Amino acid sequence: MSSTYGENLKLSIFGQSHGAGIGMTLDGIPAGLPVDLDKLQQFLNRRAPGQNDWSTPRREEDRPEFLAGLLDGYTCGAPIAAVIYNKNTRSKDYSNLHDVPRPGHADYTAQVKYGGFQDVAGGGHFSGRLTAPLCIAGGLCKQWLEQEGIRIGAHILGIAGVPKYDDDRDEPAFDTLNPELDQISFDFPVLSTKAGEKMREHIAAVRAEGDSVGGMIECAVTGLPAGLGDPMFGGMESRIASIVYGVPAVKYVDFGAGVAAAYRQGSENNDSYYVEDGIVKTMTNHCGGILGGITNGMPLIFRAAIKPTPSISQPQQSVSLSRMENTTLEIKGRHDPCIVPRAVPVIEAAAAIAIYDAVLARRREIGGI
Amino acid sequence: MSSTYGENLKLSIFGQSHGAGIGMTLDGIPAGLPVDLDKLQQFLNRRAPGQNDWSTPRREEDRPEFLAGLLDGYTCGAPIAAVIYNKNTRSKDYSNLHDVPRPGHADYTAQVKYGGFQDVAGGGHFSGRLTAPLCIAGGLCKQWLEQEGIRIGAHILGIAGVPKYDDDRDEPAFDTLNPELDQISFDFPVLSTKAGEKMREHIAAVRAEGDSVGGMIECAVTGLPAGLGDPMFGGMESRIASIVYGVPAVKYVDFGAGVAAAYRQGSENNDSYYVEDGIVKTMTNHCGGILGGITNGMPLIFRAAIKPTPSISQPQQSVSLSRMENTTLEIKGRHDPCIVPRAVPVIEAAAAIAIYDAVLARRREIGGI
Amino acid sequence: MSSTYGENLKLSIFGQSHGAGIGMTLDGIPAGLPVDLDKLQQFLNRRAPGQNDWSTPRREEDRPEFLAGLLDGYTCGAPIAAVIYNKNTRSKDYSNLHDVPRPGHADYTAQVKYGGFQDVAGGGHFSGRLTAPLCIAGGLCKQWLEQEGIRIGAHILGIAGVPKYDDDRDEPAFDTLNPELDQISFDFPVLSTKAGEKMREHIAAVRAEGDSVGGMIECAVTGLPAGLGDPMFGGMESRIASIVYGVPAVKYVDFGAGVAAAYRQGSENNDSYYVEDGIVKTMTNHCGGILGGITNGMPLIFRAAIKPTPSISQPQQSVSLSRMENTTLEIKGRHDPCIVPRAVPVIEAAAAIAIYDAVLARRREIGGI
Amino acid sequence: MSSTYGENLKLSIFGQSHGAGIGMTLDGIPAGLPVDLDKLQQFLNRRAPGQNDWSTPRREEDRPEFLAGLLDGYTCGAPIAAVIYNKNTRSKDYSNLHDVPRPGHADYTAQVKYGGFQDVAGGGHFSGRLTAPLCIAGGLCKQWLEQEGIRIGAHILGIAGVPKYDDDRDEPAFDTLNPELDQISFDFPVLSTKAGEKMREHIAAVRAEGDSVGGMIECAVTGLPAGLGDPMFGGMESRIASIVYGVPAVKYVDFGAGVAAAYRQGSENNDSYYVEDGIVKTMTNHCGGILGGITNGMPLIFRAAIKPTPSISQPQQSVSLSRMENTTLEIKGRHDPCIVPRAVPVIEAAAAIAIYDAVLARRREIGGI
Repeated sequence: MSSTYGENLKLSIFGQSHGAGIGMTLDGIPAGLPVDLDKLQQFLNRRAPGQNDWSTPRREEDRPEFLAGLLDGYTCGAPIAAVIYNKNTRSKDYSNLHDVPRPGHADYTAQVKYGGFQDVAGGGHFSGRLTAPLCIAGGLCKQWLEQEGIRIGAHILGIAGVPKYDDDRDEPAFDTLNPELDQISFDFPVLSTKAGEKMREHIAAVRAEGDSVGGMIECAVTGLPAGLGDPMFGGMESRIASIVYGVPAVKYVDFGAGVAAAYRQGSENNDSYYVEDGIVKTMTNHCGGILGGITNGMPLIFRAAIKPTPSISQPQQSVSLSRMENTTLEIKGRHDPCIVPRAVPVIEAAAAIAIYDAVLARRREIGGI
Repeated sequence: MSSTYGENLKLSIFGQSHGAGIGMTLDGIPAGLPVDLDKLQQFLNRRAPGQNDWSTPRREEDRPEFLAGLLDGYTCGAPIAAVIYNKNTRSKDYSNLHDVPRPGHADYTAQVKYGGFQDVAGGGHFSGRLTAPLCIAGGLCKQWLEQEGIRIGAHILGIAGVPKYDDDRDEPAFDTLNPELDQISFDFPVLSTKAGEKMREHIAAVRAEGDSVGGMIECAVTGLPAGLGDPMFGGMESRIASIVYGVPAVKYVDFGAGVAAAYRQGSENNDSYYVEDGIVKTMTNHCGGILGGITNGMPLIFRAAIKPTPSISQPQQSVSLSRMENTTLEIKGRHDPCIVPRAVPVIEAAAAIAIYDAVLARRREIGGI
Repeated sequence: MSSTYGENLKLSIFGQSHGAGIGMTLDGIPAGLPVDLDKLQQFLNRRAPGQNDWSTPRREEDRPEFLAGLLDGYTCGAPIAAVIYNKNTRSKDYSNLHDVPRPGHADYTAQVKYGGFQDVAGGGHFSGRLTAPLCIAGGLCKQWLEQEGIRIGAHILGIAGVPKYDDDRDEPAFDTLNPELDQISFDFPVLSTKAGEKMREHIAAVRAEGDSVGGMIECAVTGLPAGLGDPMFGGMESRIASIVYGVPAVKYVDFGAGVAAAYRQGSENNDSYYVEDGIVKTMTNHCGGILGGITNGMPLIFRAAIKPTPSISQPQQSVSLSRMENTTLEIKGRHDPCIVPRAVPVIEAAAAIAIYDAVLARRREIGGI
Repeated sequence: MSSTYGENLKLSIFGQSHGAGIGMTLDGIPAGLPVDLDKLQQFLNRRAPGQNDWSTPRREEDRPEFLAGLLDGYTCGAPIAAVIYNKNTRSKDYSNLHDVPRPGHADYTAQVKYGGFQDVAGGGHFSGRLTAPLCIAGGLCKQWLEQEGIRIGAHILGIAGVPKYDDDRDEPAFDTLNPELDQISFDFPVLSTKAGEKMREHIAAVRAEGDSVGGMIECAVTGLPAGLGDPMFGGMESRIASIVYGVPAVKYVDFGAGVAAAYRQGSENNDSYYVEDGIVKTMTNHCGGILGGITNGMPLIFRAAIKPTPSISQPQQSVSLSRMENTTLEIKGRHDPCIVPRAVPVIEAAAAIAIYDAVLARRREIGGI
């Protein structure tokens, strides 16, 4: 485990925030899959920081260099390796971070685990910047899934206390969610323009206070065949949750009706079957497209909650580890007041990797050599 | 993956509901660990169905026979193997289940995945009965963790719409939660007696309607050292979620403040540090004892939502797969109206396995050969 | 690792020689594969001890009971689990084995590794008896490979100093080796009857001295498609060697020309290509059917050397671990003077498992979901 | 599997011979281990081609750039990533290699497996050049093992028909082999100077014919504690063989007495125990330091045979895959007539990785968190 994921594909992510580079290797991908690097860059740009109210000023592009695995626009069967070189490398003294851990960050736990040898600059290997190589792998898987007719889209379901849908629109039907997601603004991906405006106002207000906010992201996968996933620990929920929880700041993942299932009766929660055009469908989709860990052909729906960015300008209570006494910490510099918009493509990427891995697993059952 | 879990320990679960037996193998466990089989049986009894309002009448005990791996009350280093033989084996004709899938069950997805070769009797490998071998493995891990001072407890946080704590008591402090859990009634494990009574009344009412309900379980792990878990996909959240989502009927897992984190500001959500008796602690525990995927020494807290049992007596809409047309299904027999109480030890077992695996992983870093 | 093997299928072997039972779980096998249990039993009988000159007197049959994974003669998609119950369980005091390790056995290394908690009776988990569950898994894989036209056979290439082919026959052509292997006597599988007689005489003579002998086994796999296996550590050599070296007593594995390749020039060792009936073939097969870790469609050939059974009647030098002083050890009872004939099906089983795993891996590249 | 190795550490190797770069990621390594980059470079230089009779003229140094995982001379706990950039990238047209496969190379098997999408330039991912990143990982593991007192050395045991030890010296005792290996010339590592001269003359003669030769390498590991490795498929033989067989051109691996064990009687082959200075030792070391898959504290000895380089100047028989007819192939350019000397550090590297992985595994059993 650690920074390695996958049953059939093997994803390995490396890098520290201010090291020489961050990147990934992706082994186990069949040869002959086309790769559209421009499209991948567009996907990565959705994650990159920008000139807006909710992220840090853009410092550098996330432009991957592929060292291996691609040839003439196709995968060549060898492991794929890509690097994003850091221009913004380690320059100043970060030794204070060894002593006074920032609340909500991994500073303290890394100190205990690595005994002081960890790279603390910019969060080191725990930096949210490590989601860039995750998006390289996920962006590629997303392209390959699209070729199979499988589409993945996500949107912001809510920022702090702002309701997800305003009165300008109805809740989308689950089977139209994904097509609609293809057309929303990737800059601030919400389904309700009015709700989106309120969310942005809220973020701006919080930023002014030197504070931060979290939010909820919903992801929908359409075009999935029935039969993906395995029983028990190989179920789609386990496969997706284990990678989505690998995204820093995620503290919640649910599927389909999720928590609502805990508050319903079976007669309400069960999804009745019907046949349409020779295909078995369900009238509702409370199971989120997964039964017994296996896809049923309906859209796969899940949500992930992102905690508020722990870096805030307000003074916070912490401790000096060297003196083992209480102290107050002030974090300098500018910080994303809300990483939720930038996390949307990351959640899509994580889902794409998990699903492509499940597709490879499914092929073993289909037969033929 | 599939029915196999673990990075250092290797758990493999087998069996079908009405097959010859269900069981597990557990490889990678050090030699010399004591095993208290009576205590294990008591743990397994918490999961077994009983004479009460919320479960099916008891048919048989879940009494494991150990085929390998134990000797004179200790692990001997060889893989551990245990079987629970089924007395209630396949007798009648289940072929109808191949044709008309039960809503909310894995019947349809198994049919697609296995092409009709799956064992449908009693749900086959998808049966909740498969949580019994999970509890064998988890019950053992729980004992070994207790020897290291790590305790795992869980309770029912809510059943359907019934509030979790009634006016007879306050919400427990997170650091006293687990000791308290050791003393609650395992029969119906709730922290508030009054709330528990209301939940039981609610279950009885739902049962009378031929319906079912789900609920929420909360699990607390105390005594954990700081430093367990790995960054990214090896984080404690990923490790725990991937096994908890392997428990049938779980559709939601969150950690610490969970969904609430999405609605808070950073200044509220960050857990401030302080020093007490030479130990670094946090004033709140919104992170649920995990930062950057790694334990911080505070209690690890997570929740899992259990969907309502899909087997209900009321007629339901389904389809005939052979004729590809709509039909109505009535499921005969008696069913658990609420599996939440029986799922409580299963969630503890899942947590114990994930945490013991992380303990083994942590040892690699400590050194010495 | 440990007693677990496989990339796509997951084989887990458990049991101790004199424990309650020995067995295996095999996960990841597609549903709908037919299983002929009579044929499997015939295969297992080849490994079982018999009434002859080279093995211990037969004590009990190796008759597996399938607990899970099979239904009506087919795999049902759930993990397969089988147990062979031991009739000959732990009865006498084996504590002496903790103190005076038998030369050539795992007694001493197990003592160090498990700190005295290991099961020493009959060799515990290190017993050759654990090859029985390996043969259950391998016998199943062999059946499924035969359905794809892939045949696996092995024979005794030599016992101690006895030459492999006598003057009664020529060396077989590599492409006819496997069909011929189907027709040899499984009781003592040699290609040359005269050489076989001399080997048996040699074994009888060694037995009379209270000594033992080892030998060499050759295995051939025909009908393989080109394209199985992966580069580097996923190569067929790595896949096969890692399981064959898991068979107790194997100390040597080579492929194709093996050691001879080290003594040839490239112009001799390279296998020239030619086309026949629209198929690319090689004139020689020094590479043993594997180039770059990947099958080339020619027969896959490998050999494994089995060391002489370490249990001999002659007195041997050993040590008392409790007193840390030298001592002399005499091992009582009757022992196989030569396990090579019984090891032949075990090598076939190991090859079958590795190859079936590679077949499942190959399917991921073929496409389609 | 594929290009990924390890149970506890996770090694992933990427790159094609003429791609942008070759490299590796190595996850699961504890923090705080010192890294001597100069010493690593010296180790890598042993593998690099040089100005001598047996290798291609040196084109470029193998100088790794570390992108992640190291900080101020120590591992920082994050995954280690290193790249060697190729200066000698793809320039000419290699399309002919798609059509006429070189005998003994992976050209044909790669064509079948990857359907023509593979990178054929310089052998692509199958190039011997990929052993450079293996040596980065192995060179690091070798340093860390040395800190634990574990030393790994290898030497050339024979080149083609040239005897391994000439009359200038005796066969070394197995327990002095490794210290001696530290002092031999790394340029052409042999224990007998006179035999070495004959081997070099032989290579020169073969080169003059436009041909190539293979040879045998022996590796010894001293300072190992007893207790490393696991039963069955986790045995040291399986762990080492599976990575050594991942080195291109290896077709043979044996341990201890290896093939000789097949020709001895038990009374000769068993290694008698004795006590010396309070340590249990064996008088002989036919088991190569491994019993039941677990180290016994004696030197671990194994050998690997390297086939002759398939690239030779002489015309060879091959086929045109496009026309499916026989043809003759002449390979232009200069080639290593013998890669055995350069393969010596690669075998050491492979052993170091397997052993360091086993050390990490062993720690799980030692306890303490």
